[in-house]
Amino acid sequence: MFPVSAKGFKNPRIGAFSRTATHHEPKIFNPATASQDFQFFFYCQRLDHFNYKPESYSTFQQRYVINSKYWGGVNSSAPIFAFLGEETDLDYDLSIIGFLTDNASRFKALLVYIEHRFYGKSIPFGYSSEEAMKNASIRGFFNSAQAIADYAAILIHVKKTLLAKDSPIIVIGGSYGGMLAAWFRLKYPHIALGALASSAPILYFDDIAPQAGYYSIVTKDFKETSESCYETIRKSWSEIDEVASKPDGLSILSQKFKTCSKLKRSFDLKDYLDSMYAEAAQYNEPPIYPLTILCRAIDGAAEGADILGQLFTGVVAYMGNKSCYDMDQYNDPTDRWRWQMCSELVIPIGHEKNDSMFQPAPFNLSSFTKECKSLFGVQPQPHWITTYYGCHDIKLTLHRFASNIIFSNGLRDPHSSGGVLENISDSVVAISTVNGSHCLDILPAKTSDPEWLTLQRKNEVETIEGWISNYYSDLEEFSGQTQA
Amino acid sequence: MFPVSAKGFKNPRIGAFSRTATHHEPKIFNPATASQDFQFFFYCQRLDHFNYKPESYSTFQQRYVINSKYWGGVNSSAPIFAFLGEETDLDYDLSIIGFLTDNASRFKALLVYIEHRFYGKSIPFGYSSEEAMKNASIRGFFNSAQAIADYAAILIHVKKTLLAKDSPIIVIGGSYGGMLAAWFRLKYPHIALGALASSAPILYFDDIAPQAGYYSIVTKDFKETSESCYETIRKSWSEIDEVASKPDGLSILSQKFKTCSKLKRSFDLKDYLDSMYAEAAQYNEPPIYPLTILCRAIDGAAEGADILGQLFTGVVAYMGNKSCYDMDQYNDPTDRWRWQMCSELVIPIGHEKNDSMFQPAPFNLSSFTKECKSLFGVQPQPHWITTYYGCHDIKLTLHRFASNIIFSNGLRDPHSSGGVLENISDSVVAISTVNGSHCLDILPAKTSDPEWLTLQRKNEVETIEGWISNYYSDLEEFSGQTQA
Repeated sequence: MFPVSAKGFKNPRIGAFSRTATHHEPKIFNPATASQDFQFFFYCQRLDHFNYKPESYSTFQQRYVINSKYWGGVNSSAPIFAFLGEETDLDYDLSIIGFLTDNASRFKALLVYIEHRFYGKSIPFGYSSEEAMKNASIRGFFNSAQAIADYAAILIHVKKTLLAKDSPIIVIGGSYGGMLAAWFRLKYPHIALGALASSAPILYFDDIAPQAGYYSIVTKDFKETSESCYETIRKSWSEIDEVASKPDGLSILSQKFKTCSKLKRSFDLKDYLDSMYAEAAQYNEPPIYPLTILCRAIDGAAEGADILGQLFTGVVAYMGNKSCYDMDQYNDPTDRWRWQMCSELVIPIGHEKNDSMFQPAPFNLSSFTKECKSLFGVQPQPHWITTYYGCHDIKLTLHRFASNIIFSNGLRDPHSSGGVLENISDSVVAISTVNGSHCLDILPAKTSDPEWLTLQRKNEVETIEGWISNYYSDLEEFSGQTQA
Repeated sequence: MFPVSAKGFKNPRIGAFSRTATHHEPKIFNPATASQDFQFFFYCQRLDHFNYKPESYSTFQQRYVINSKYWGGVNSSAPIFAFLGEETDLDYDLSIIGFLTDNASRFKALLVYIEHRFYGKSIPFGYSSEEAMKNASIRGFFNSAQAIADYAAILIHVKKTLLAKDSPIIVIGGSYGGMLAAWFRLKYPHIALGALASSAPILYFDDIAPQAGYYSIVTKDFKETSESCYETIRKSWSEIDEVASKPDGLSILSQKFKTCSKLKRSFDLKDYLDSMYAEAAQYNEPPIYPLTILCRAIDGAAEGADILGQLFTGVVAYMGNKSCYDMDQYNDPTDRWRWQMCSELVIPIGHEKNDSMFQPAPFNLSSFTKECKSLFGVQPQPHWITTYYGCHDIKLTLHRFASNIIFSNGLRDPHSSGGVLENISDSVVAISTVNGSHCLDILPAKTSDPEWLTLQRKNEVETIEGWISNYYSDLEEFSGQTQA
């Protein structure tokens, strides 16, 4: 998940693990050719869990996947790992999530993956995403409270079907899906024994985290990678403005950056670059480290190139050598994440002054609201997330409540600015890496992984083992008691 | 709250603290003449907290009351006691709830009382209860998840208005309201520091508690009060059946029991008596102990009276001397509690064989469903409560999760059969009295109270003091930290 930028929706970069650079193009999971270990199902899901009028009894088909290859089975009460889908097609998640398959054998775990309502093949009534999103009545049901209630219903159904009453469930999610995993453990502790919430910025809401947090980490990442790269970018905005203000300046910029269509305003170029920098920082993964590639190109072009020439060399290095560059690449007006931000997930991220490498452009709630109203006809509810899920004074409120949540973060991930980075209690813990980027820990383990990443995953796995071990002793102690 | 009896809705006795016997007719709170300490407000509440379609942005006026006479104020972060209304008019609660005013001075607490949506003056759009309940679209929003979200919104609003950010909130409720208090602490721990859930039968759902539990306690209460009274009642049902089967038998029964209109079937008389016995057991309060009065009359009439004569002497003693007795007294077809039971609160209570003093009449889900469908056109959702709130294996699921809940019960209250009677952890505790009846602990303290009741309340108050004291040390330790 990417934040809404300072420019409202001009730049709503989303997709928990989405990235555009060619360096890390994921293979899309193809059910037809996939391993037979993954079985696909559809659950008849209630559209509205919180209403009892006749219409709200409507149901839709929600997709989920089960892999029972490694499962220890009912007799040993072997655990269930449940991946809670975020704002994307489940096929995509299946293609890039490694934590479940990597650890299934060690835990003898059943694996379950559930698609988020309104994504992939889980759009109500078989609508296309466009049809569903155009329908003001239908899209009203597209929110996080309904989504985690979906997960509750499916997980209960799976346990019932498999007669797996005593199998503990660990929920796992990344980014927005990580928020859902943490919230699921808080709201449905009777269903999930614990949660691994990877790169889940649950402190974004209601201004708990500073609005400038995201971009100040992007800036820091660039500065730490290369001071000269950072300086070049910092100076480039006024350079772009200056060229743009010349007669035919937009043509010059269009040529310099090989834009697929002629720029109508310099903003579009700046926004494209802004998104690219943010993405490079967010997904700055080993062993390739795209941000290093980008900065090396910018720095390397220094001799003989002007600032804009340096930037373009960076674009080519990061995006790959293309016949032209699509300035709308990060700007999909049909994005469903816009709806989620416009209704409940109001994330106030902006460019503040500070020592950012970006031009100032603070988040503006009233213009954001205006844009949401014109797009969807509804008023964003910026305080609902903190009303329903909390997050203010999180240590104070959860220190003696809740248990078994891992908030994992990589501190070079700009989203860590909204993450939980300190232990809240003995079992609600933060596991961070200084050099990590977005959701690294739940991607597949590779032999080339740096030691700090391997250690983070080891720490997570051992923490989860501890939860399950406590659970088994509780199960022995309390089962069979009328009240237990 | 009373259970739905074995006879579906014939006997849906409800009202958390409602009782019909003249011995304990409560004074209804009259706002006009009430103490100036109680201030009445209306909050502009969202009708649907879980939807973002334009219609669900509708709002209604929800009533709440504040008493700040005893409040220590913002500077000392003095606590807030919030009474969460159940299925009744808030005026009624204000007239009979004592726990808040009794302890306000000791805690320097602000008192807040909130009316449950669809009751009292909190019916959406200013509808009458009949209008609201006839409207299938409107009544769909009448459920517990929406209700506790209402409480969350109002409590946040109150804290914000009073600038009382650091004041801990303790939520208090009785019977169904006690369920709501416990569930509120579980779902909104960031708003309520703790909950006193008085006589809250949260284990009724999904057959966690035995279906015969309620009436087996009624039976036990009668047996312990008077073995002969119990025997008389146990034998009376066949006696009634026998008289009813005679020519003109219903006239004889109508005369014997001075029914206000001639009985159309013996069932109505039996159901009336069944309800009266259950009520006498549920509200068998000191110092009067209505069940003792009832049994003393039944036993005292033994000489010279036949069994039916004995019963009628009991009716007169319990109900008061009336010109006639209304067999529909316990049977209000407009009762809103029916809706709640027919939609989500499916409470499977029945008369099983066992050694009950009642005729067998097990709960039958399919006939219950049929009746609900004919009444409201909707299918009851018997598994939703356990999906959303849990309750299965409650010790296993909450032993290492949650904190600060008191489940208080009187073991002579038939509803204790669905209550939590064992400690779940150090701070999720059961405080029961062997001789207590329904919700006694939250009624006003009286000098005539037995010692066990005084001790129960003392235990509750000291437990809550412990929570608040821990909270204040956490507040000192964690406040000011970015992540705290």
